[in-house]
Amino acid sequence: MPRILRINCRTQEYSFEEVGRYANLGGRALTSRIINKEVPATCHPLSAENKLVFAAGLLGGSTAANSGRISVGTKSPLTGGIKESNSGGLFAHKLPKMDLIAIVLEDKPAKEAPFFTLFVTEDKVEFKEAGDIVGMDNYPAHDKLLAEYGDKMVAAMIGSAGETLRKTATVQFTDPYKRPARSAGRGGTGAVMGSKRIKAIILDPAVNNKVGAVDADAFKTARSTWVDILKGHPVTSEGLPGFGTAVLVNVINEAGALPTKNFRYGQCEHAADISGEKLAETIEARHGKVSEGCHTGCIIQCSQQYNDADGNYLTSGFEYETIWAFGANAMIKSLDDIAALDRICDEKGMDTIEIGNTVAVAMDGGIIPWGDGKAAIELIRKVGTGDPLGMIIGNGVVAAGDAFGVDRLPVVKRQSMPAYDPRAVKGVGVTYATTAMGADHTAGYGVTANVLGVGGTVDGHKKEGNVELSKNLQVATAAIDSMGFCLFVAFAVLDAENGVQTMADLVQTYTGNTFTVDDLIALGANAMKDEQEFNEHAGFSKVDDRLPRFMEIEPLPPHNVTWDFDEEEVQGAKV
Amino acid sequence: MPRILRINCRTQEYSFEEVGRYANLGGRALTSRIINKEVPATCHPLSAENKLVFAAGLLGGSTAANSGRISVGTKSPLTGGIKESNSGGLFAHKLPKMDLIAIVLEDKPAKEAPFFTLFVTEDKVEFKEAGDIVGMDNYPAHDKLLAEYGDKMVAAMIGSAGETLRKTATVQFTDPYKRPARSAGRGGTGAVMGSKRIKAIILDPAVNNKVGAVDADAFKTARSTWVDILKGHPVTSEGLPGFGTAVLVNVINEAGALPTKNFRYGQCEHAADISGEKLAETIEARHGKVSEGCHTGCIIQCSQQYNDADGNYLTSGFEYETIWAFGANAMIKSLDDIAALDRICDEKGMDTIEIGNTVAVAMDGGIIPWGDGKAAIELIRKVGTGDPLGMIIGNGVVAAGDAFGVDRLPVVKRQSMPAYDPRAVKGVGVTYATTAMGADHTAGYGVTANVLGVGGTVDGHKKEGNVELSKNLQVATAAIDSMGFCLFVAFAVLDAENGVQTMADLVQTYTGNTFTVDDLIALGANAMKDEQEFNEHAGFSKVDDRLPRFMEIEPLPPHNVTWDFDEEEVQGAKV
Repeated sequence: MPRILRINCRTQEYSFEEVGRYANLGGRALTSRIINKEVPATCHPLSAENKLVFAAGLLGGSTAANSGRISVGTKSPLTGGIKESNSGGLFAHKLPKMDLIAIVLEDKPAKEAPFFTLFVTEDKVEFKEAGDIVGMDNYPAHDKLLAEYGDKMVAAMIGSAGETLRKTATVQFTDPYKRPARSAGRGGTGAVMGSKRIKAIILDPAVNNKVGAVDADAFKTARSTWVDILKGHPVTSEGLPGFGTAVLVNVINEAGALPTKNFRYGQCEHAADISGEKLAETIEARHGKVSEGCHTGCIIQCSQQYNDADGNYLTSGFEYETIWAFGANAMIKSLDDIAALDRICDEKGMDTIEIGNTVAVAMDGGIIPWGDGKAAIELIRKVGTGDPLGMIIGNGVVAAGDAFGVDRLPVVKRQSMPAYDPRAVKGVGVTYATTAMGADHTAGYGVTANVLGVGGTVDGHKKEGNVELSKNLQVATAAIDSMGFCLFVAFAVLDAENGVQTMADLVQTYTGNTFTVDDLIALGANAMKDEQEFNEHAGFSKVDDRLPRFMEIEPLPPHNVTWDFDEEEVQGAKV
Repeated sequence: MPRILRINCRTQEYSFEEVGRYANLGGRALTSRIINKEVPATCHPLSAENKLVFAAGLLGGSTAANSGRISVGTKSPLTGGIKESNSGGLFAHKLPKMDLIAIVLEDKPAKEAPFFTLFVTEDKVEFKEAGDIVGMDNYPAHDKLLAEYGDKMVAAMIGSAGETLRKTATVQFTDPYKRPARSAGRGGTGAVMGSKRIKAIILDPAVNNKVGAVDADAFKTARSTWVDILKGHPVTSEGLPGFGTAVLVNVINEAGALPTKNFRYGQCEHAADISGEKLAETIEARHGKVSEGCHTGCIIQCSQQYNDADGNYLTSGFEYETIWAFGANAMIKSLDDIAALDRICDEKGMDTIEIGNTVAVAMDGGIIPWGDGKAAIELIRKVGTGDPLGMIIGNGVVAAGDAFGVDRLPVVKRQSMPAYDPRAVKGVGVTYATTAMGADHTAGYGVTANVLGVGGTVDGHKKEGNVELSKNLQVATAAIDSMGFCLFVAFAVLDAENGVQTMADLVQTYTGNTFTVDDLIALGANAMKDEQEFNEHAGFSKVDDRLPRFMEIEPLPPHNVTWDFDEEEVQGAKV
């Protein structure tokens, strides 16, 4: 029977509770419901009233392929709205093996309180002063936790960005290679953990209860169909394993939608230098790993290990978004510099998208020169220290724009945009505009039909069809995030007639509860409803569903498209 | 015939235009109408689409007592909403003597463009590179302008805070004592001027056209009645001239509403050290000036000149709000330190309320010790330089809270609260909550009936009557700001039966246009409508009419009152 573990970070009390009114929810649907029901929408995100929820998906603990993503929910310090930030790693599959569906961190101690680690066993939570891992980089700190708790330990932790309450702070998760290289990246979830003075949550390696499917035979059948679906699509079986997500650099550049120099252009002259093809070639030459998964049970394997010029491990989970942000948007040409920036982000626990965009804004403000990778490295190293420049950079694009006097800020709801210029990929633009998350491609990836020809074709330069496209993708994505699936399964599902049905079958046979395609859709739609309701209560209005003014008046080369939706026209993308 | 001068700061073109659709508007009613009609509500405040409007009131240029206040309107960099910031000085009475009712700065040049001064004559605008006064403190820079343009020059200028686009940046105005000591303080108007690369606007001393009342005899009669009203009220004839606005320190402290230590307490132990009585005593002992006016025609004379211990001029326009912000809220006990802080704010062109609150937040965040005046001086000196800490401090309370990890932020619509804790003075609390300006006591000064017994009595600890009180005051204040009156005339008007009628008579006889009490009320209400409409278009919702969450849950000693209005309950204070 799954339980919810609530931990009061001030009193150090905790309770293992029945799921009660949160039954039949998982992942994002669960985090968003808890936040919407329990957190006053107008509280300060770093105040005692905010909560931080870690939830496994409905398929958490199962052997269904690519179902081990974790959802981290809170009121976002970055946006001021609700946030679900999603990560790989081992945490999600581990929770159900401890009879848990979620952990909720509540309240907070005085600011002067020491940082604690939480060791969670089957029926206890041990608060322990975090000691010398405070202020330490994540990799060495994680190594110390491994040494203390053993190789099978699974942790969620924050780095110095989270400790110092930066709005870009991530929660990092133990991955299958014993590294804290997987991030709940967006929205500053790590700052909320930091405000509660929790450095790490460690799940007891000794507890590993068996979690079987309720209808084991039917589950096995569905699981096998599911593998066929994922293996049958070129994106999930060839593109992503072959080149990682960076396969998109050339594709999006070709489409004229690769935001370049703080969203001035849609194409980048040095795209070839930072492409997925170049990345794969470099990794192979240096005997890295072209393909690996971020969690057990992953059969897409879009991740990789990138070695430095000497052949030593430098970073992994080296995503298209990261490479784009530092590479095209901040104009840095060296993949090695970008990889070093990615590693620093993981070490300090920072969102690479927000930090990459922030570096571009710092360049726009004349703080460091355009394209200067070494200067960027020096700059972001200041985050998590007492350096005031680090305080600014660590708080993201809006903070940097305000500090450096830059008014060209590619943000929605104060969260900066990912690697697709919405003027040229309007399907994802509608998602940026309308999702409760702030500018977020993973909330409804319209790139599919706009650029990739997956799930049909919709012209990304025109308005027609893009609101509907975004809405359908947003609902499906919210369901995917709630079941615990990796978003990339969507590529295969969109082109497979039995895709959605198979996902529903997996949940039904695993949980033993009736779960139809309609239930799946409702799961996603209800998560969105919780999120929209919270944001309304937090003060968001329709006007917050506009993109930045400069995108309305500045055409994007080479296709010279502008953003021409007003806030009324995009409301149809909401539930 | 009054004209509007429009100046394009990019092309350096300008035009003197008939008022056209803006006829019969002045001051705040005019700035708010222009901003609402001409500025896209969703533009970035520092982008080319924002405008900066300087407008004289309907009585600008007249000899009616206390009618020479200037309105500065824009989209605020601090709040993201509309802003009218009001100042004394000589600018407002001078404009009509050049046949101008308003100057509108439009567009902006490239960021790398030099700063210019604008020399405005009767029919020309001369752009001149500002040269070495850029980066200079306001007093010496103003002296250089006086030397260049002569003793009768009247200027509006920004300091280094405005040049560097800080959200606390003011526009400073020449006062009757040839000092740039009067500030359009709130909301960052100076940053908008800085974004347009305008260092100063100088009004030609050679132009001084005669401006007579259209109905001269009737105007004379009304003017005399008006003087009697102001001279007949103890606040405007004794309290304010005798002790300046700092007379309020003891009064508000007694009432338990003096926000202390970043709004933790309603009384301050060292209130006597920073009281108006102590201030007057110190000024007299040092042969300063206890009483002076901020503009010609002022008969209230609430300002003063404060000398340092050696008897040399240190500062003027040394307001209760400033003394409270640094003195009680940041716990600084030395009036000399507070006066030095006030002077630095004038030199750099910074809002003393926002900066004082920001210093308190910096103390709350452990950046400098509580009550350390010398450290505060050092800290705020960094604003306007390239120092990143100065970038943070110069952007106000929210920026400082975000950077220093402080979640106790006494702001509404991102503007910090003035010197009255809204929990104990709910009449002004409703104004903070509902005015389009963000937390602003001057938008509807409920302290009158809540504490001072002026204009009736309403219990400031209870809800009853305070929404109505605030609404009536907000409408009246918007009218006062639109006629060009000093807000303090309200003390006398509220207790004089013929007060409002006399103000209307003054406008009617001066302008020659019918202007009844109903017209006066409509003038104020329509200004508010413009402001509310702009803010709605900018994305504000009712939820933005809440006070910070901590005031809802934390009782304020000594009366242990909380803020118990929700957003619906205060809507009645809007028009």
